[in-house]
Amino acid sequence: MNDMVITSVQNPRVKTVVALQQKSAERRRTGLFVVEGRREVEHCVEMGLEVMEVFVCEEMGGWSCDDVAANKTEVTSGTQGLRVTEVTRGVYEKMAYRGGTEGVMAVVKSKERRLEELDLSENPLIVVVERVEKPGNLGAILRSADAAGADAVVVCDPLTDLWNPNLIRSSIGAVFTVPCVACGSEECIEFLKAHGIQILTAQLQDSELYYDTDMRRGTAIVMGTEATGLTEVWRQAADAHIRIPMLGRLDSLNVSVSAAILLYEAVRQRGGTLKGKESVQ
Amino acid sequence: MNDMVITSVQNPRVKTVVALQQKSAERRRTGLFVVEGRREVEHCVEMGLEVMEVFVCEEMGGWSCDDVAANKTEVTSGTQGLRVTEVTRGVYEKMAYRGGTEGVMAVVKSKERRLEELDLSENPLIVVVERVEKPGNLGAILRSADAAGADAVVVCDPLTDLWNPNLIRSSIGAVFTVPCVACGSEECIEFLKAHGIQILTAQLQDSELYYDTDMRRGTAIVMGTEATGLTEVWRQAADAHIRIPMLGRLDSLNVSVSAAILLYEAVRQRGGTLKGKESVQ
Repeated sequence: MNDMVITSVQNPRVKTVVALQQKSAERRRTGLFVVEGRREVEHCVEMGLEVMEVFVCEEMGGWSCDDVAANKTEVTSGTQGLRVTEVTRGVYEKMAYRGGTEGVMAVVKSKERRLEELDLSENPLIVVVERVEKPGNLGAILRSADAAGADAVVVCDPLTDLWNPNLIRSSIGAVFTVPCVACGSEECIEFLKAHGIQILTAQLQDSELYYDTDMRRGTAIVMGTEATGLTEVWRQAADAHIRIPMLGRLDSLNVSVSAAILLYEAVRQRGGTLKGKESVQ
Repeated sequence: MNDMVITSVQNPRVKTVVALQQKSAERRRTGLFVVEGRREVEHCVEMGLEVMEVFVCEEMGGWSCDDVAANKTEVTSGTQGLRVTEVTRGVYEKMAYRGGTEGVMAVVKSKERRLEELDLSENPLIVVVERVEKPGNLGAILRSADAAGADAVVVCDPLTDLWNPNLIRSSIGAVFTVPCVACGSEECIEFLKAHGIQILTAQLQDSELYYDTDMRRGTAIVMGTEATGLTEVWRQAADAHIRIPMLGRLDSLNVSVSAAILLYEAVRQRGGTLKGKESVQ
């Protein structure tokens, strides 16, 4: 336990957190990232990530330092010698990416996962996202992948890192609950083919309707960017091209919405039994 | 044509636009709202909305005043005596809700639509959203409703107006292409029952799986808020309660993602033929 309260936004530890929030280069350099929110921090601990430091703001309803030190909260389970520091509201708000996160924030050690480390089910369901630009979209895809019980999300040739604060926020923690891998497209295609997982690319051209496509066997659903779609390497590697019919006046769905529609078609075809079980109502 | 260029953010017309962007009370009082972006302004015109005034910033790639005056762009078709004013980049950015909208912005007269005015197809597909809080979510629902060829979106007891800039933006213009009605829940239920449209409420408790539910007849899919779900009046009025199975560790999907999954299940069951036709690839 640490009795110090940080009251100044000039404090070097505060500046470190702000830099981690704002700069992917800083996250890469240090291997650290910032998580905001009680449940999000708990998810990190559950998933075996190493929590380096916790900041709390009691005034905002955060845990008290005593709570954390006395092991009264789950965050400390399995985390020895954790440094917990209280901060004032002004300092908290300076460090927070957005408001309303219950006054709890942690610096966490990121963990790179590799394709070979994925623990796949018998009939895997995988989402592959190629070069997605917006962290918020990737976070939303992760959230839907969690809900649909997907085995993994693979981000190919990413333009954002997985520890971007906007991504973490929009995933509402799914970035910690769904196994995520970042890798190159060629490496991913090789992996899928080696494991007999069919590749379904979402694209309008030369495609069949998604609900006419059998997704009961091991399946990877591959999404491109909203702007330019998938690259040729994925189109060539595909077992089938699938499309969601556009019946209105506009010509596109949000990429995370498209991913959810395709994932849940797989759930439907498989009778609701993927690797996960439906949670008790 | 008007040769004046507005260069000052203190200009009263600039202040009027900023007030319309920021305050729903101001939009209600005047019956006006602001649209940003070339395609969005064109959608307004196509949908028969009255464009009162256009601001362009040529420097940002917007139409020139001459273009608009000479009827070279679609925006002016059907809009007589339109006032077009050029503004500097600084003024444009002050008035814009967000960047990247091609230097074209319009003040448009809003049009309230009533339930009885809806032009429904033989087997209507309607989305009803009760008390949705976030304009961005409602915009995303509208975008998916357009894509799925839904007949209408009804917003019951709304906490946001339909002309909120964030809603317009996230709908990418669907707020103009999909018929939208705001009304009370009781009125909406009466309308649906009078038209023989089945009411399917999305809720976890006492529900059947959504893909086990027949959506081939006239159907209203009813969504509650993310925080508190649907009110009792809707649960009571429902012909069936339907749920999307949650197979992961988290316990919810984004409301707009849920709406899209349910809408596209109706599309699938109906063999892709709703009121709309699939657009040519």
